[in-house]
Amino acid sequence: MSIFETLESEVRSYSRGWPTVFDRAQGSWLYSEDGKPYLDFFAGAGALNYGHNHPVLKKALIDYISRDGVTHSLDMFTVAKRDFLETLNEVILQPRSMEYKVIFPGPGGANAVEAALKLARKVTGKESVINFTNAFHGMTLGALSVTGNSMKRGGAGIPLVHATPMPYDQYFDGAYPDFLYFERLLEDSGSGLNEPAAVIVETVQGEGGINAARLEWLKGLSDLCKRHNILLILDDVQMGCGRTGPFFSFEEAGIEPDMICLSKSIGGYGLPMAITLIRPDLDVWAPGEHNGTFRGISPAFVTAAEALRTYWRDDELEKSTKAKGERIGTVFNEIVEAYPESNLVAKGRGLARGLEFPSGELAGKVCAAAFDRGLLMETSGPDSEVVKLLPALTTTDDEIEKGLGIIKDSVESVLAR
Amino acid sequence: MSIFETLESEVRSYSRGWPTVFDRAQGSWLYSEDGKPYLDFFAGAGALNYGHNHPVLKKALIDYISRDGVTHSLDMFTVAKRDFLETLNEVILQPRSMEYKVIFPGPGGANAVEAALKLARKVTGKESVINFTNAFHGMTLGALSVTGNSMKRGGAGIPLVHATPMPYDQYFDGAYPDFLYFERLLEDSGSGLNEPAAVIVETVQGEGGINAARLEWLKGLSDLCKRHNILLILDDVQMGCGRTGPFFSFEEAGIEPDMICLSKSIGGYGLPMAITLIRPDLDVWAPGEHNGTFRGISPAFVTAAEALRTYWRDDELEKSTKAKGERIGTVFNEIVEAYPESNLVAKGRGLARGLEFPSGELAGKVCAAAFDRGLLMETSGPDSEVVKLLPALTTTDDEIEKGLGIIKDSVESVLAR
Amino acid sequence: MSIFETLESEVRSYSRGWPTVFDRAQGSWLYSEDGKPYLDFFAGAGALNYGHNHPVLKKALIDYISRDGVTHSLDMFTVAKRDFLETLNEVILQPRSMEYKVIFPGPGGANAVEAALKLARKVTGKESVINFTNAFHGMTLGALSVTGNSMKRGGAGIPLVHATPMPYDQYFDGAYPDFLYFERLLEDSGSGLNEPAAVIVETVQGEGGINAARLEWLKGLSDLCKRHNILLILDDVQMGCGRTGPFFSFEEAGIEPDMICLSKSIGGYGLPMAITLIRPDLDVWAPGEHNGTFRGISPAFVTAAEALRTYWRDDELEKSTKAKGERIGTVFNEIVEAYPESNLVAKGRGLARGLEFPSGELAGKVCAAAFDRGLLMETSGPDSEVVKLLPALTTTDDEIEKGLGIIKDSVESVLAR
Amino acid sequence: MSIFETLESEVRSYSRGWPTVFDRAQGSWLYSEDGKPYLDFFAGAGALNYGHNHPVLKKALIDYISRDGVTHSLDMFTVAKRDFLETLNEVILQPRSMEYKVIFPGPGGANAVEAALKLARKVTGKESVINFTNAFHGMTLGALSVTGNSMKRGGAGIPLVHATPMPYDQYFDGAYPDFLYFERLLEDSGSGLNEPAAVIVETVQGEGGINAARLEWLKGLSDLCKRHNILLILDDVQMGCGRTGPFFSFEEAGIEPDMICLSKSIGGYGLPMAITLIRPDLDVWAPGEHNGTFRGISPAFVTAAEALRTYWRDDELEKSTKAKGERIGTVFNEIVEAYPESNLVAKGRGLARGLEFPSGELAGKVCAAAFDRGLLMETSGPDSEVVKLLPALTTTDDEIEKGLGIIKDSVESVLAR
Repeated sequence: MSIFETLESEVRSYSRGWPTVFDRAQGSWLYSEDGKPYLDFFAGAGALNYGHNHPVLKKALIDYISRDGVTHSLDMFTVAKRDFLETLNEVILQPRSMEYKVIFPGPGGANAVEAALKLARKVTGKESVINFTNAFHGMTLGALSVTGNSMKRGGAGIPLVHATPMPYDQYFDGAYPDFLYFERLLEDSGSGLNEPAAVIVETVQGEGGINAARLEWLKGLSDLCKRHNILLILDDVQMGCGRTGPFFSFEEAGIEPDMICLSKSIGGYGLPMAITLIRPDLDVWAPGEHNGTFRGISPAFVTAAEALRTYWRDDELEKSTKAKGERIGTVFNEIVEAYPESNLVAKGRGLARGLEFPSGELAGKVCAAAFDRGLLMETSGPDSEVVKLLPALTTTDDEIEKGLGIIKDSVESVLAR
Repeated sequence: MSIFETLESEVRSYSRGWPTVFDRAQGSWLYSEDGKPYLDFFAGAGALNYGHNHPVLKKALIDYISRDGVTHSLDMFTVAKRDFLETLNEVILQPRSMEYKVIFPGPGGANAVEAALKLARKVTGKESVINFTNAFHGMTLGALSVTGNSMKRGGAGIPLVHATPMPYDQYFDGAYPDFLYFERLLEDSGSGLNEPAAVIVETVQGEGGINAARLEWLKGLSDLCKRHNILLILDDVQMGCGRTGPFFSFEEAGIEPDMICLSKSIGGYGLPMAITLIRPDLDVWAPGEHNGTFRGISPAFVTAAEALRTYWRDDELEKSTKAKGERIGTVFNEIVEAYPESNLVAKGRGLARGLEFPSGELAGKVCAAAFDRGLLMETSGPDSEVVKLLPALTTTDDEIEKGLGIIKDSVESVLAR
Repeated sequence: MSIFETLESEVRSYSRGWPTVFDRAQGSWLYSEDGKPYLDFFAGAGALNYGHNHPVLKKALIDYISRDGVTHSLDMFTVAKRDFLETLNEVILQPRSMEYKVIFPGPGGANAVEAALKLARKVTGKESVINFTNAFHGMTLGALSVTGNSMKRGGAGIPLVHATPMPYDQYFDGAYPDFLYFERLLEDSGSGLNEPAAVIVETVQGEGGINAARLEWLKGLSDLCKRHNILLILDDVQMGCGRTGPFFSFEEAGIEPDMICLSKSIGGYGLPMAITLIRPDLDVWAPGEHNGTFRGISPAFVTAAEALRTYWRDDELEKSTKAKGERIGTVFNEIVEAYPESNLVAKGRGLARGLEFPSGELAGKVCAAAFDRGLLMETSGPDSEVVKLLPALTTTDDEIEKGLGIIKDSVESVLAR
Repeated sequence: MSIFETLESEVRSYSRGWPTVFDRAQGSWLYSEDGKPYLDFFAGAGALNYGHNHPVLKKALIDYISRDGVTHSLDMFTVAKRDFLETLNEVILQPRSMEYKVIFPGPGGANAVEAALKLARKVTGKESVINFTNAFHGMTLGALSVTGNSMKRGGAGIPLVHATPMPYDQYFDGAYPDFLYFERLLEDSGSGLNEPAAVIVETVQGEGGINAARLEWLKGLSDLCKRHNILLILDDVQMGCGRTGPFFSFEEAGIEPDMICLSKSIGGYGLPMAITLIRPDLDVWAPGEHNGTFRGISPAFVTAAEALRTYWRDDELEKSTKAKGERIGTVFNEIVEAYPESNLVAKGRGLARGLEFPSGELAGKVCAAAFDRGLLMETSGPDSEVVKLLPALTTTDDEIEKGLGIIKDSVESVLAR
């Protein structure tokens, strides 16, 4: 491991919890260079909803590369981009009666967020944005300013201003009405709250600790935004593309965000890709006002389109995701009940699941025990106190059971000591 | 083209100058879906220094994908990343006696810049950064704040502060001493200039109009930074990886930047990838203080390592780049002389070349005429007044001549009317 | 009135509600140039706690001017300043066992606030400040950024950042625990709240609508600040100098602010003067780091010292202020009960009293009716919906009754129509 | 001096150079409590252009106080304010064909600057302001952000942004064309300079080291502002009211600023007062959008009006100021020539005069030597290297000679050692 230690910056993090060198991967399995298999319940932090190296996507990708399809194309028109746009329109947008235009904002989720924030400010002429406690939206300066984690914010080196955090759903355990403080500040012209251009929100806060907002809270937020003429930016980078069941994580809430950020699994195969969907009337950009080098990675368009065609023409994946998610939820509740003195909490929706421990130390030990047993999971939450599961949506029932068995063992090994 | 017009945001730009749908590509050639070949003298804005779909890299890429090498791996240890780090070290850093640590900051050049700015501020505890007139560093909020173009800055929707622009080399056509104003402000405790954490600079401003700083100016800047204890961030995203001849564009200036940003051609094949090189003693990040989903795209590591091995074990590419660049320079000078009344200016270094016209309108017409003749070029500069050439370094001499012929014709068609 | 209309900026405000030209003043009475007396229940917005042109202070002032005492003295040592400091120490600080150092920050209340904010940030190295809904702290950029009123904030012309508003006492009518949101954000490292250098608070929000914080809320705030190592800045510019009874408005809450801002009535006679009291260990300024021309107006020191000697050697003024305040409160409650359908609310403490109407329009009409009847009052609150009374503390019982009679008549004339 | 040392903040500065307790003052003389006279060549940093306790003003002031004229009147209409406005109009504005409206922005010069900056931003919708190297405009956050001194800027505790410093006249000793860099940045849409709302400038930088801009530079700046549609804010707080000869220091440059800030000597007697003059069409404030407690100090209006009537109905004061200034300039030049090896520089215009030493240490020693000899002067400039003279304009020729004699002795005592 020497070259990593001597040459790579200390900022690396995942490699600290999983100190092995990975080589190959297939479906829900990663293999270290010495051949040891690891069941991957983290799936690229949600970038691999269809598993590693999915054979259908792989074939399409190799075909495309083999025939010298354009690889890099800035924001030029390409056959691959056209196919992606047409498939997105036909398979995703039209069946849901959604009217949006597509920005290719750059290769990653933070680019999707930066483009949305820029456009929201440009359209409204207002500078302020509302974010939520424990939000995570990315590491570039604009995205970081709406992210909650104080350690990550501290990395900015300048004051992160222009955003005001509001309490996320259940921040006070339901003891107080939703949006109590937020709406009071908006209605009071003396409140001192700068009038916001937009609200940016995740439906389930993954990095924040697998906090799943109730659908009625999301609906309430959407209504509040409409009442106060505030744009609603839905960051579906981690929870979109089926992670909670439906393609968009907000579908069941019955809301229509003004902007939607997608990345991670939109490319299907783990290649960098992001899009920002915007209400057509908000498309006030001048040509080139937002640009970038990696906005047209055609191999990702190819696997993205193929993934949509393969999985989203019917509701099978959605149903199976919910079923598998509920199975995990059931087992997590059993674990919670098995250690009543430990005050564990089962969290999440769909295949975004969390098990909250009283401390980050305990959660970290459980993840380490799982790694030793061949299962990859990570922690999240402000104090890293939540064991976070984002298995590929294509994980089989057997794999789910295998992983849950390892989790049970790992929890027992830590809590029963 | 209908789906592009109805579904894609108006922010798209390159597709406006090149209104055709591209399908395949090979070397310096792009092919539209109806089979028309285009000689590509723009090369992904510098992301394709080794040309489109280079056969050696393509083979390594298909081999890797075929054998189910890990595609997406966050910042985990992988065989592919190790090979890239070892090759970078062996082929690039050690032969140049360069000691740096490597940050994987995210998939694009803006991520490399954001990471550098964050770290410079964190290390120094200062918030202010010096940038240069007509700089271009990216579209995310941190990178945009050090970018000069007013149209792009306007997209931010908030005041872009924390940066002060200084005159780039030759900003006054050499009439005044270098760094006259900058150093005076630094030395005067009453100047009102906030003490800067860092200077960020390009050796040749591509987007800014192919402004090539003299080597002695770069050396002077480096000396000034040392004298005043300011970190020097060298943004080699577009000009690095051999664009001007040597691997790093600053090598001939004999300077040692504190941080170096690389992206675009570092991946070799056009897949998104970026690195930030930092002086080892500046590596003060906490683990995970800067993170992101797409920091470990192993297919890009594979093509990146293969490109380094293929082209940088000797100085052949460097020499040929310089030779081809000089050939373009010679022809550009001939064009300049052929239209004395038009006040054209030939600009650039290596294979970053520009031909400045009196107006953006004229430059645009020349690019349009070239497109009609099957050649892809773009404009740059504050008023889009510079025809900008970034051909693949692997472009053959014949292709160079062919392209130059088209350029001559195109200029004639515009200026001789 | 012609010269005012032609030459004075439209920003003037009080002269719009009181469209007459005043000439002389004595005690609680102002006289227009045509000799009409006005009972002044506004007292220079709290700058005239001892009434207009108090004879004892007037004598001291004329004596000082007559004998050519230094008028303007920057921050030089003067006999007048020494007398003020000694009197402040002997009459105010020592009897209350208060240890503070005195900054002369400039002539007005906003200067006192700006100095406190600057010092709090310098001492802590943090940039963020917590203010409260409907706070008012002044019109200069630093003070304005912690002020709530959106119209006044809009005057800044730049985004006012670096401050986050928290709910003031009773913002939710007591339905939720105090500091619920504030403390949760502080304790949650993922909340996204920038760690605050200081909290700035008024004990009674005058401009905000005569909102009197409960003493236990103030105590709770002080305890919270201590728990979280946040400096507490008490802005006593309007409510200090006896306005609510005791010299400092926070005395009865039993708290010890880290910094105290005084202005308005500190000078005694209405001449501009301000001081910022700071905990001695916070006095980390370099000499001249904060300066200004009008920090040593000796005539104001003379009347300031004389006022302290005259009124604060015993508790008579405090007692009478409370008694008069309670009398007004009683009458206001009678008014509230007399118009049950109007939902009036009686507010305030000591001689800072308010009568809240359902709309700014009604409150404005009542003030206009009072002006017609020879009584000066103003409105306050986010929608100017609160009739605001700040009579001189020296107003006689007869004058109080006379004024209350006019108020009753005025309310009746507006509500009983 | 004990109470000053124990109770007053360490931020005090003038009292460090003049360690005595002053009691009385008359004309150009200050008297310590033990009766020692000091010839005052600093005159309240320009706040006492008519000397200490001028008998004519004193009489008007005592008369006004004695007859119970309103002292404190917010922004109400008063007889005293009317008289001031009429006198200002008749004696100053009309004879100069100047059309301006008057804002009463608060009691001090920083308030005048804050109001101008706020209005400039509001009118233009732009946030950025251009200031100059070594500018001084005040200590409140808005004014401080356009001030150059790094020690004072450091007191802010937050990044001071929204302003970009440009080189003041002679910043490069005349070696380069005026406004070279400034205008180039304005004309280059890729410069990265945020489009400025306004330029703020002093005609002679007092605090910055008695740097007197040439009249043609001021004219050039005004022309540049007009060409680029930038508002010109003339900060005449220290140099106005006759300090350089004419009432406004910019009169001889033949320019018409869009806004003019006056304070210090505008009140005549040293009482706090400030006004901001604005072009009538810029008067877009909403009533009360900028307010404050001390905007109507009638005693200052009384002495202000009396001073205008006494001194500005003819050009005698202007002439004598110039003559005395030239006399000082002559002597300073003699001193410069007497110590050729010391590289002294004589600076200034009118009765704002400076003698620059090679170091702040030397300048400080000269001031200390003068204090010992009974003369008050201060240092200024970024390194306190300039001995700064701002004698009252009413200083007699004999007093001028006496003071110059002391200066000569003091310089000799320091340099000839």
